[in-house]
Amino acid sequence: MKKIGVVLSGCGVRDGSEIHEAVFALLSIDQAGCEAVCMAPDADFAVTNHLTMQDAGEHRNILVESARIARGNIRDLSDVKAADLDAVVFPGGFGAAKNLCDFAVKGASASVNPETLRLLKEMAAAGKPIGVICIAPALLAAALGRDLAPTVTIGNDAGTAAEIEKTGAIHQECPVTGFIVDKKNKIVSTPAYMLATRISEVQQGIEKCVQEVIKLI
Amino acid sequence: MKKIGVVLSGCGVRDGSEIHEAVFALLSIDQAGCEAVCMAPDADFAVTNHLTMQDAGEHRNILVESARIARGNIRDLSDVKAADLDAVVFPGGFGAAKNLCDFAVKGASASVNPETLRLLKEMAAAGKPIGVICIAPALLAAALGRDLAPTVTIGNDAGTAAEIEKTGAIHQECPVTGFIVDKKNKIVSTPAYMLATRISEVQQGIEKCVQEVIKLI
Repeated sequence: MKKIGVVLSGCGVRDGSEIHEAVFALLSIDQAGCEAVCMAPDADFAVTNHLTMQDAGEHRNILVESARIARGNIRDLSDVKAADLDAVVFPGGFGAAKNLCDFAVKGASASVNPETLRLLKEMAAAGKPIGVICIAPALLAAALGRDLAPTVTIGNDAGTAAEIEKTGAIHQECPVTGFIVDKKNKIVSTPAYMLATRISEVQQGIEKCVQEVIKLI
Repeated sequence: MKKIGVVLSGCGVRDGSEIHEAVFALLSIDQAGCEAVCMAPDADFAVTNHLTMQDAGEHRNILVESARIARGNIRDLSDVKAADLDAVVFPGGFGAAKNLCDFAVKGASASVNPETLRLLKEMAAAGKPIGVICIAPALLAAALGRDLAPTVTIGNDAGTAAEIEKTGAIHQECPVTGFIVDKKNKIVSTPAYMLATRISEVQQGIEKCVQEVIKLI
């Protein structure tokens, strides 16, 4: 059974993984007859109250909160190597741009969480496919934009696309339930909640993205 | 557009709403062309660390944490009346049996959160359909078992089924992707993670359950 890594960044759109996106990635992996391997970094993050959307003035642990989405079946990212996986998928949510890197604050000059960067570099070096959902293409660009000049989409937000291109990556517009494939680099991206106004659109785009990632194995 | 209430009890299988179940309920509602109305009680709950599965010795707010699943689009349960809804669905997770009632501790003699009980009684009195997923049929039994003698399923766990029957409800066994309809009371139930070993099974059962709830409107 093919093993697809799912890198989580917390549990909630404003300070972690976007929950719907993460769940649809897990669903699509299972529906394709593959095994999901959830992981997250063991590090703290600043909590956002999702009722008020204000800073909660509190910190939680990324791995511990991500475990909610994974129902406890999750590994410390630092223990997972590319050799353990056939492909990897990154759901979106602000966690991808605030916890796995600081693109949300620093744009193209973002630095990337060291273990996330290591896994991305290992996967790319091994020629294993990478799926990036919603804002996660910005993380990928921050990590590998200069080295690989990957083609990705975050939908059609001009400001974000411009920051992504400053890293050396190439941005291509894409409709909400579509996806973009960079065949050379084996990178697949889909806009999800960067564009979606309905949860069913998110599910459709992610299913296609994950299926394409699996095809590239 | 028909409005389907989704009553959440937190964000995580061990101390709140089971996340996959809640997301699939939201997805199925949208796919059916209906509008989901998320709500949760404004009350505290005891946190479980989902990495260690141990008590975290901490409390959080049910409404605030449920807002993570709802992406902030959520109402205080006490502000929602049956007149605002065409039907209502309760995802499972321990939150349904620990936060919305105390069935997890007290079984058939459980008491039910007053606002949850009010909404359930209002929906039943108005003849509006109720969907209960996973362990949520135990909550329904604790609330309405004596009055309605509803027929429900939690799959095939004999101990839980026996406690449910002590309330006056009737338990019927059901396979993982099936559902049970009590036509007289307009109550639909599906086992989800009470039986599921794969996330795709959960999605299938919940889709059928939600579709049946909507048919009964």
